[in-house]
Amino acid sequence: MLKPLGDRVIIEIVEEEEKTASGIVLPDSAKEKPQQGRVVSVGEGRLLDNGSKTAPDVNEGDRVIFAKYAGAELKHEGKDYLILREDDILAIIG
Amino acid sequence: MLKPLGDRVIIEIVEEEEKTASGIVLPDSAKEKPQQGRVVSVGEGRLLDNGSKTAPDVNEGDRVIFAKYAGAELKHEGKDYLILREDDILAIIG
Amino acid sequence: MLKPLGDRVIIEIVEEEEKTASGIVLPDSAKEKPQQGRVVSVGEGRLLDNGSKTAPDVNEGDRVIFAKYAGAELKHEGKDYLILREDDILAIIG
Amino acid sequence: MLKPLGDRVIIEIVEEEEKTASGIVLPDSAKEKPQQGRVVSVGEGRLLDNGSKTAPDVNEGDRVIFAKYAGAELKHEGKDYLILREDDILAIIG
Amino acid sequence: MLKPLGDRVIIEIVEEEEKTASGIVLPDSAKEKPQQGRVVSVGEGRLLDNGSKTAPDVNEGDRVIFAKYAGAELKHEGKDYLILREDDILAIIG
Amino acid sequence: MLKPLGDRVIIEIVEEEEKTASGIVLPDSAKEKPQQGRVVSVGEGRLLDNGSKTAPDVNEGDRVIFAKYAGAELKHEGKDYLILREDDILAIIG
Amino acid sequence: MLKPLGDRVIIEIVEEEEKTASGIVLPDSAKEKPQQGRVVSVGEGRLLDNGSKTAPDVNEGDRVIFAKYAGAELKHEGKDYLILREDDILAIIG
Repeated sequence: MLKPLGDRVIIEIVEEEEKTASGIVLPDSAKEKPQQGRVVSVGEGRLLDNGSKTAPDVNEGDRVIFAKYAGAELKHEGKDYLILREDDILAIIG
Repeated sequence: MLKPLGDRVIIEIVEEEEKTASGIVLPDSAKEKPQQGRVVSVGEGRLLDNGSKTAPDVNEGDRVIFAKYAGAELKHEGKDYLILREDDILAIIG
Repeated sequence: MLKPLGDRVIIEIVEEEEKTASGIVLPDSAKEKPQQGRVVSVGEGRLLDNGSKTAPDVNEGDRVIFAKYAGAELKHEGKDYLILREDDILAIIG
Repeated sequence: MLKPLGDRVIIEIVEEEEKTASGIVLPDSAKEKPQQGRVVSVGEGRLLDNGSKTAPDVNEGDRVIFAKYAGAELKHEGKDYLILREDDILAIIG
Repeated sequence: MLKPLGDRVIIEIVEEEEKTASGIVLPDSAKEKPQQGRVVSVGEGRLLDNGSKTAPDVNEGDRVIFAKYAGAELKHEGKDYLILREDDILAIIG
Repeated sequence: MLKPLGDRVIIEIVEEEEKTASGIVLPDSAKEKPQQGRVVSVGEGRLLDNGSKTAPDVNEGDRVIFAKYAGAELKHEGKDYLILREDDILAIIG
Repeated sequence: MLKPLGDRVIIEIVEEEEKTASGIVLPDSAKEKPQQGRVVSVGEGRLLDNGSKTAPDVNEGDRVIFAKYAGAELKHEGKDYLILREDDILAIIG
C-alpha cells in the first residue's frame, strides 16, 4: 500500500478505451490537455499556516481529471500510478 | 457531470455568432483579448489560510468574460468546455 | 452591463483631445507612461486572507491615471474599455 | 489635483542646480544611483492583510531620495512628476 | 549520529535489488522518477508563522518514495544518505 | 541629516586601512565578499503584517559587516554613504 | 567578536583532515555536496510575522553540515568564517 504525504493524491491512470466510453474526448488544440484517472489513495491534506490540515476534496474511488504534466510516475505491482498534488486535480467526474 | 475543484469554474465556450449578437466585439490590438463563455459549474471556492473557503463570485448560468489563454480544454458529451480558476474570470455580463 | 470581478475595474479610455484639455501631457521618456481614463464599473474588492473583501478606492465616474500596459481590452456597444486590477490604477485626478 | 492610490506617492523632481546647493552629489559608480525630489501628494497607505491601512511615513513637502528607475512619469500643468510606491523612497532629507 | 534541522529528513538509499523485491519498478518515461529509501532520522518539523513547529508525517524506519533530484548527499560511516526536506517525500510504503 | 525609511539603514563606508587595523581581511575566493561600515542612521523598522513595526537590530555607531553589492550609494557633505535594508547587514563587530 | 544578525549563524570551517577522522566523507556525485563546520556564533533568530523571534536550533560549539555554496566568507583574526542563514544548516552531528 502507498500512502501519499500531505496534499498528495495517488491516481490510477484510466486507459484510452475506457476514456472514450465515458464520453470524454480531448480535442485537438494548443491548450494544455487534462487527463483522466481514478483516485487510489489520498494524503491527510495540506498543512495550513495555523497548523491545522485541510481535509482533501477528493476521495478514494473518485474519477478525476488532472493536469497532464503534473506529478511523478511509479509502477506498483504491475500498475501505473501518478502521485499528484491535490491542486493538480481539476475536476471530479460525477 | 463535471464538478470543478477548489476555485475552479467550468465554462461553456460561447460561439462567435452569439458573441456578435450580444454586442461585444473584440477589437484589433496587441493587448490580451478576453473571451466570452457561460458558467456551467462552480467549485466550492478558494481555501483561505484560516481554513475556510470563500464562496465563489460567479454562479451557474452567468455569462462571463475570461482571459483568453487561461485554463485547460476538454470535450464532454460533444461540447467544448474550459476549466478555469475563478481569478481568470474578468467580468460578468449583467 | 459589465460587472468586473474581485479587485478589477472597468475603465473607459479617455481620448487624446480630451486629455490635452485637462492639462495632462505625457512627456517623451524611456519610462513607463501612464494613461488616462474614466471608471465605468468597480468590482467588490480584493479578497483578504481573513476572508473579508476590501472596498475599492475608486468609484464610478472617477477620472484616473493607470499603467499603460495593464489589463485587457474589450469593445462593448461600440465603446472601448479596459479591465484592470485596481492596483494598476496609479492616481485619481481630483 | 492628483491623488495617488494606496501606497503611492507623487514626487516633484528636484532640478540638478538645486541638488548641488543642498550638498548632495551622486558619485560615479556602477551602483544604483538614487534621485532627489519633493513629495507633492501621498496615498492613504498600503493595505495590510488584516484589512487596515498603514499611514505613510512621508508627508507632503518632504524632501526625499528615491530609487532612480522607480515609478512612472507624467507632466501636469507644465511640471514633471513621478508616481512611486512609498517603498521606493529611500530616505528623507531632514 | 546526524540530527537533521527543521523540516529535514535523513534517508538511507534503498538499493536496486531490494527495490525490485518490493514490487516497485520505475517505468520508462519522460516524467520525473521518484526513488525509494528508508527514513533514518527526522527533524523537529517546519516552523509555522505562528511560531509553533509541525510534527513531521514520517517516522524513523518508514520506507518512503521521494523526488529523485531532491536533497544533498553525504556518506557517514560507509553508508550513503540523503538529506531531504519532508516536502520532497511523496509517499510512505505501508 | 538623512533619515532612512522603513527597514533601511545608512552606512558610512569604512576605509581599507581602518579595515586592516581591525583584523578583518577578506580572503580571495569566488564567494560573495562582505564589506565593513559604521551605522550612521537607522529607519523605524520593517512593517509587519499585523501593522506594527519591528525595532531594528542595529544602532547608530555600530560597526557592521554587510553584503557587498547591496544598497544604493550617495555622497552627502563630502562623505560616501550606502543606504541598505537592515536584512543586508550580516553581523555586528562587537 | 562577531555577532550575526537575525537568523544568521557564523561557522568556523572544519579542515579536511578533521573531517575524515569523524568518518564523514563526501561521495563523488553530481548532487550538491554539503560541508562541515563548527558554530561560532548564533543570531537572535528569525523574525516571525507576529513580531516575535524564533530561538535558533543550533548552539555555539555544535558541529554542523551545511549547504556548500551558502553564505558569505570572511577572515577574522586569521581564521576563516562563513556567515550563513540558519536554514542553510542541514544537520547537527551529534
